[in-house]
Amino acid sequence: MNGAESLLRTLVGSGVEVCFGNPGTSEMHFVAALDRVDGMRTVLGLFEGAVTGMADGYGRMAEKPAATLLHLGPGLANGLANLHNARRAATPLVNIVGDHATYHAQYDAPLASDVHGFARPVSAWVHSSASARTVAADGALAVQAALQYPGQIATLILPADTAWLEADRPAPALPKPMPAQVSTEAIDQAAIALRSGKKSVLLIRGAALKERGLNAAGRIAAAIGARIACDTFAPRCQRGAGRARIERIPYFAEQIVEFMRGTEQLILVGAKPPVSFFAYPNKPSWCTPEDCRILYLAHAHEDGTAALEALADTLKATHQRLDTDTLNKPDIPAGPLDARTAGQVIAHYLPEGAIISDEGATAGGGVHRFAAAIEPHDHLTLTGGAIGQGIPLATGAAVACPDRKVVCLHGDGGAMYTLQALWTQAREALDVTTVVFANRSYAILNIELGRVGAGDPGPKAFSMLDLHNPELDWVKLGSGMGVESTRATSVEEFANQLGSAMKHRGPRLIEVVL
Amino acid sequence: MNGAESLLRTLVGSGVEVCFGNPGTSEMHFVAALDRVDGMRTVLGLFEGAVTGMADGYGRMAEKPAATLLHLGPGLANGLANLHNARRAATPLVNIVGDHATYHAQYDAPLASDVHGFARPVSAWVHSSASARTVAADGALAVQAALQYPGQIATLILPADTAWLEADRPAPALPKPMPAQVSTEAIDQAAIALRSGKKSVLLIRGAALKERGLNAAGRIAAAIGARIACDTFAPRCQRGAGRARIERIPYFAEQIVEFMRGTEQLILVGAKPPVSFFAYPNKPSWCTPEDCRILYLAHAHEDGTAALEALADTLKATHQRLDTDTLNKPDIPAGPLDARTAGQVIAHYLPEGAIISDEGATAGGGVHRFAAAIEPHDHLTLTGGAIGQGIPLATGAAVACPDRKVVCLHGDGGAMYTLQALWTQAREALDVTTVVFANRSYAILNIELGRVGAGDPGPKAFSMLDLHNPELDWVKLGSGMGVESTRATSVEEFANQLGSAMKHRGPRLIEVVL
Repeated sequence: MNGAESLLRTLVGSGVEVCFGNPGTSEMHFVAALDRVDGMRTVLGLFEGAVTGMADGYGRMAEKPAATLLHLGPGLANGLANLHNARRAATPLVNIVGDHATYHAQYDAPLASDVHGFARPVSAWVHSSASARTVAADGALAVQAALQYPGQIATLILPADTAWLEADRPAPALPKPMPAQVSTEAIDQAAIALRSGKKSVLLIRGAALKERGLNAAGRIAAAIGARIACDTFAPRCQRGAGRARIERIPYFAEQIVEFMRGTEQLILVGAKPPVSFFAYPNKPSWCTPEDCRILYLAHAHEDGTAALEALADTLKATHQRLDTDTLNKPDIPAGPLDARTAGQVIAHYLPEGAIISDEGATAGGGVHRFAAAIEPHDHLTLTGGAIGQGIPLATGAAVACPDRKVVCLHGDGGAMYTLQALWTQAREALDVTTVVFANRSYAILNIELGRVGAGDPGPKAFSMLDLHNPELDWVKLGSGMGVESTRATSVEEFANQLGSAMKHRGPRLIEVVL
Repeated sequence: MNGAESLLRTLVGSGVEVCFGNPGTSEMHFVAALDRVDGMRTVLGLFEGAVTGMADGYGRMAEKPAATLLHLGPGLANGLANLHNARRAATPLVNIVGDHATYHAQYDAPLASDVHGFARPVSAWVHSSASARTVAADGALAVQAALQYPGQIATLILPADTAWLEADRPAPALPKPMPAQVSTEAIDQAAIALRSGKKSVLLIRGAALKERGLNAAGRIAAAIGARIACDTFAPRCQRGAGRARIERIPYFAEQIVEFMRGTEQLILVGAKPPVSFFAYPNKPSWCTPEDCRILYLAHAHEDGTAALEALADTLKATHQRLDTDTLNKPDIPAGPLDARTAGQVIAHYLPEGAIISDEGATAGGGVHRFAAAIEPHDHLTLTGGAIGQGIPLATGAAVACPDRKVVCLHGDGGAMYTLQALWTQAREALDVTTVVFANRSYAILNIELGRVGAGDPGPKAFSMLDLHNPELDWVKLGSGMGVESTRATSVEEFANQLGSAMKHRGPRLIEVVL
């Protein structure tokens, strides 16, 4: 077998089941090997930003890495923004980046570039294979690196000759890294702090935002009177009726300050203290009260869920009654179609087990608010602030969870970044409904323009934030890529279209005109 | 004035007239300053890959830098692939990349990233401003760096507080770097070599591919009997009736070897010896005959045009009659619509002074062949091999040259990468006609799959190169972004549609179904 086949067999043997890709000439041996090796599903994306975003969505839901297959430095470069988001989400992910043959690099051909340089800012692990005979072992290391708890990005650069030359055999899978366990000292310290009666917030991130961790945290909160919270942009949070209720930290600095006001103890579980997303003149970046004590119950690389359960045990809160919502689905509202009523309609129809890929920006909050007490579901957010994540993320989540309905909430500005992923939804017949909130602007920036104190902006400034002239037609854009697409201009239209989409399988797009 | 305004005034004072951008919060002070400063046209792109490609197209035609305005590391990252192409084109270009305020960096907020790291692989000059009071001087240095002959990419990182804090004044423009002059020794050596009667190829790249340089080269070739050639992917080449005829080096390695066979002397003018675009098993990377002598008449940083004129003078070829084509426009052909007949139709209608942005891939060759003897025009190519350049490049060229018709030739696979630039064409009412060759595949890869010797690929491999299922509808995609779009399935339809597009101003898209 050649190097490419040895790598592919190693990836499959190491538990990688899906490869999202957009290959070129230097990846052709890897592509050709796909038909000789069982166990790797391949999903084509028509742009690498779509490809990497899909791998992120897959990794967040499957909790194991997908591979990407990217074409030299520029192919990787196109995927970097969504790799930035994946890095912030701590998603396990293995990039396979083809490169020129080792002996070809000296000629500085047009596509030659500093692939390492492109990879480094987003990758915890980068390696360029030196020989076809080491590619398999390198692949096993890449998977292990990606699985380093809670998850990280490994980038394996594959010079074309290491793919086509003869290799020995696949490499065995390496042991899966397990999360470090929290010391009893850390648990005892948190227990002492919580028992002190001081006003406490438990801020949670990572796998502990799934039901088990949430329930332990919820019992602690109920027993002690603490608050439990998650970041504005948690990679994945399980929500809904019957699950422990968790507060989401608001977006703007002064709102965070208000949220944290009076907090005497901040207990971190895989999280960092909350800071402002951007700096603003004369506004704080640091949002925790100055005199607040900060304790780390679990660092990001530690098992936050087990730590919360141990802490609940220590606090004798294991059987505490959870403070949860009972099922409460909003009715279809009256009134004009806006972010609020759209949120009610979506929460009304969202089925049990749905996955929300939320890049709704200024329009996404309505859904979050009204979905708090609907059937259990997962909520995925824009972790790194690099817009253009939502559609690919939804696509990858649907690949990971074929039996669950995926709903993507997207501002129109961000949706334009990686709309190519709609085509993949159509090709793979994925069960994703994309709701594009068409306010014809980078609406958040109209808010920010005032907030940053930029004076009295004129028409040129506003034109840089405005998506009118011409208006994007999302029905044409979606259907141009093979996705059944409709436009809703009233609550009734939207309810009909979304209701239909929730009843049927397969990709849909609804342009909500705001 | 604040730092942002001091920078903007400095850019304008240094001759930068256009800013292509997609700003975010950290760039809002720069955006707000746009209305206080005259002389900077702003052009919004709905994705940064479109933005940087536009700046490349502008720079190639205007021969001076545009600025880009990009949002932190991920915004820059989205623009890297077309910056790679611009780097290979030696296009002067100034990136302004907003970043978090200097004091905010310590908090590692979600959008924080290694902006320097992203910038370095594509930038000849990278600097992050440390203070509002140095931003203006940094801007002047950036423009000077971009103008370093023949042109390069300068990236200025602008932390938000250096934009909003008080600055002193704009910085004066720095002297424009001039190309180095070639030594008389280099000219004499080339003259001696050419007079030897040995079989010689003059390989030319850069500004010497404009009429003046070509004419000097053409007279030398006619006087001495040498061949003149340009790279497959020359950034810009002036062609057409009355101009010196130049051979274009073919794409594939064995074709280049054939092209170069028998060459005893390769004389380089701003070019490097031709190499294979990719490496292939058992095929050469180096394509110049082993015993061929290689001389540098002018390096890339030297004035190749002046060197060619001096050489023509030395060889007493200044008044030599040029070997040119007389005007010869192909007729509208009969037969089915394919790359060949489409090329004839385009060459038939292309008006004088047209600018071709050629990312036609497997379908672009027809135009190049049939346009050899039409009215004078400019031909721009995919210099770095990072697909998704054509539409933005055409857009930027149209901004630089509002009185010239721009025709973009694009394979469908590459066109999907940065289709967002169509919206900018509509918004700015640019005179660009985009011809999408819809063969529903990455056709070049089907060729490459065989060439790399990847064995006997199966259905999974082929599915990774195939754009059927579903078929992209370019009429919907184009009109969804406000560009009048039609589909041609026969030569007659294409001729009617293209004829109409060439007669009228404004953006059009024609999907040529192959």
